[in-house]
Amino acid sequence: MKRNVIIAQGGGPTAVINQSLVGAVLEARGYDSVDRVYGALHGIRGLVDEDFVDLTRETHGNLERVAATPSSALGSTRDKPDADYCKAMFKTLAAHNAGTFLYIGGNDSSDTVRIVAEEAKAAGYDLTAVHIPKTVDNDLMENDHTPGYGSAARFVTQAFTGLNLDNRALKGVYIAVLMGRHAGFLTAASSLARKHEDDGPHVICLPERDFDMDGVLARIKETHDRIGRCIVAVSEGIHDRSGEPIAASLMQSVERDAHGNISLSGTGALGDLLAQEVKAKLGIGRVRADTFGYMQRAFAGAVSDVDAREARDVGEVAARAAIRDGRTASVTIERIGNYAVQYDLVPLEKIAAKTRVMPDPYIAADGLDVTRDFLDYARPLIGSAVPEAARLFENNPVEKQLSR
Amino acid sequence: MKRNVIIAQGGGPTAVINQSLVGAVLEARGYDSVDRVYGALHGIRGLVDEDFVDLTRETHGNLERVAATPSSALGSTRDKPDADYCKAMFKTLAAHNAGTFLYIGGNDSSDTVRIVAEEAKAAGYDLTAVHIPKTVDNDLMENDHTPGYGSAARFVTQAFTGLNLDNRALKGVYIAVLMGRHAGFLTAASSLARKHEDDGPHVICLPERDFDMDGVLARIKETHDRIGRCIVAVSEGIHDRSGEPIAASLMQSVERDAHGNISLSGTGALGDLLAQEVKAKLGIGRVRADTFGYMQRAFAGAVSDVDAREARDVGEVAARAAIRDGRTASVTIERIGNYAVQYDLVPLEKIAAKTRVMPDPYIAADGLDVTRDFLDYARPLIGSAVPEAARLFENNPVEKQLSR
Repeated sequence: MKRNVIIAQGGGPTAVINQSLVGAVLEARGYDSVDRVYGALHGIRGLVDEDFVDLTRETHGNLERVAATPSSALGSTRDKPDADYCKAMFKTLAAHNAGTFLYIGGNDSSDTVRIVAEEAKAAGYDLTAVHIPKTVDNDLMENDHTPGYGSAARFVTQAFTGLNLDNRALKGVYIAVLMGRHAGFLTAASSLARKHEDDGPHVICLPERDFDMDGVLARIKETHDRIGRCIVAVSEGIHDRSGEPIAASLMQSVERDAHGNISLSGTGALGDLLAQEVKAKLGIGRVRADTFGYMQRAFAGAVSDVDAREARDVGEVAARAAIRDGRTASVTIERIGNYAVQYDLVPLEKIAAKTRVMPDPYIAADGLDVTRDFLDYARPLIGSAVPEAARLFENNPVEKQLSR
Repeated sequence: MKRNVIIAQGGGPTAVINQSLVGAVLEARGYDSVDRVYGALHGIRGLVDEDFVDLTRETHGNLERVAATPSSALGSTRDKPDADYCKAMFKTLAAHNAGTFLYIGGNDSSDTVRIVAEEAKAAGYDLTAVHIPKTVDNDLMENDHTPGYGSAARFVTQAFTGLNLDNRALKGVYIAVLMGRHAGFLTAASSLARKHEDDGPHVICLPERDFDMDGVLARIKETHDRIGRCIVAVSEGIHDRSGEPIAASLMQSVERDAHGNISLSGTGALGDLLAQEVKAKLGIGRVRADTFGYMQRAFAGAVSDVDAREARDVGEVAARAAIRDGRTASVTIERIGNYAVQYDLVPLEKIAAKTRVMPDPYIAADGLDVTRDFLDYARPLIGSAVPEAARLFENNPVEKQLSR
């Protein structure tokens, strides 16, 4: 008997999450055992609310256009299912004859798939469930990297390429706050913008290390004294020795999602605090702070071609694993050679609700920079034809005629 | 006797300001009457400090690469010259046999050219001075638009294309603060990202109108009630009825440049204030605010091809006017047809230190949106091949099987 496939998207959008959607939909539509491919709106919320669109009716052309469009075309959610939530889902799945559930998301979404798969087993509901990886944070276990990261890292690289030159033109201290709650991969990507010896970022503050204001101020002062300017890239998740995020201490009220995550984005408070500290403690006049915010995960037009094709692939691999092989698992990306990848499947428990952070060899000994290992790791992920900065030749100064 | 040409860049960088530099340099290098073309570092500051690089020695290839690189390759300044400052400049100019001064900048930089030209005349120094327009604010008098605006507007358009879909996926209220002290052109460009009926921005707050918090909140509530989300684009320069910028009232200390401008960028305070108001007064849970900051003027890789070619042209026109025709003036852009431009020269006094704001026909009657006239005006400026958002077809909902 033919059964239907349900696909949905969870967590924060990325620039290539629709590539995975389309990879899965096109693969799923090709099986005789599949009747319809439904998209659930706003993640698992759509499964409870019975809110589906029929992706079997989409044209190839429109699917390709959607694949090239950032953010989650089906909408998203941060809901976390419990037993009752799952019971309601299975009622919907049964009413729509669904035997396959594909969920595109990060570590919280993989936990959702794990819960749904376990509850289905307990309830005796025949369901194959596969998690398709995505996250700009690049913090999934068992993966060399995750779809969405390469494009966000490319955006950060392109932004810092310009910001470095903006700061070089007008001098002073520039602080940028980037996404990354526990993992500093995206903040670290700012280093890919460096070309000349004195290019920024000159200081990189990662959540993998305790934030030490005095150490950071000393590094800013040293850099500013030396070249008259300094660029600082800071993860939103930087925290003190107790583990308390600096950003959270600035909030009037802390906002948590169903998975227990504190919302750190969508405010400029952390950047403003750091700028005030630099002004007050170092007496530097021109200090500016920006918070990259939601642009970095959903910008239209800074997509990594490598990221896009891998995002497409993991969607296809997931649909094949579920529909042809009946596997309940998570799709992973393994790096082979320099640079190539292959895909694999791992048990959901190995990914679910776990967080990978930057390995020590990627972080400089002083904790305020990345290493060449990180650059080698990240460079291929941001794709081809990355805009490059050029300078005027520096060996053509005009001899001074006046003595001042 | 051959004399030298000095070129410099003032004010805030743009993504195409080096196109103007290279247009002027290549043109200037072609004249028999010109010996050397020097670049002054950090604007007029370099003329006082005798800090020059010899642009006659640059290769064509490197100049083209620099032209395609954002931000001011020669560095910039916000210095405003007085009589003594000019006296020091003329000493340097004389020592380096300079007869032509080309300055790329906005309204403050055009005022600098006016001052320098007048002081040169008073001091009997033989100098031809031409102002080359640039500003992401698009606020120069006598110009249909200014180089730098098209690329910044393109960045804003691409950002909002993604942000609109990000907000559509996760709902709630999203507030973005954009550059624009007195003129709302750049904030208004967010409207170019709209494609579908319900696309944001849904509210646009411009400095051309007094900011009315209650009116804005009412519009946000109406939009959020209707579609479950709302995107607000806000100029950093919004002000109350007294003309006091809301952002300035949030600052611990107000920072002014030599031209008397308050620094409004480089802080997230305005966005955070607005987000707090929306949370407190409307009781909406998910409210996020981003401040676009310096990315919007110097991002590497979102350049408008139209903007780039016009920036190149005005540099060339300026060098020709100064060197061949001995004109002291400002270069302007006039729109002819739909869409083409031609260039002209106007007296510096017509541009210097003056500000053009958005004309009334570009602003909706309620003051919270732009008109079709604005869209028609701005659309050609952001160039070709702007990334476009696609949606899944909306006429394929799956019939509900359960009655809840």
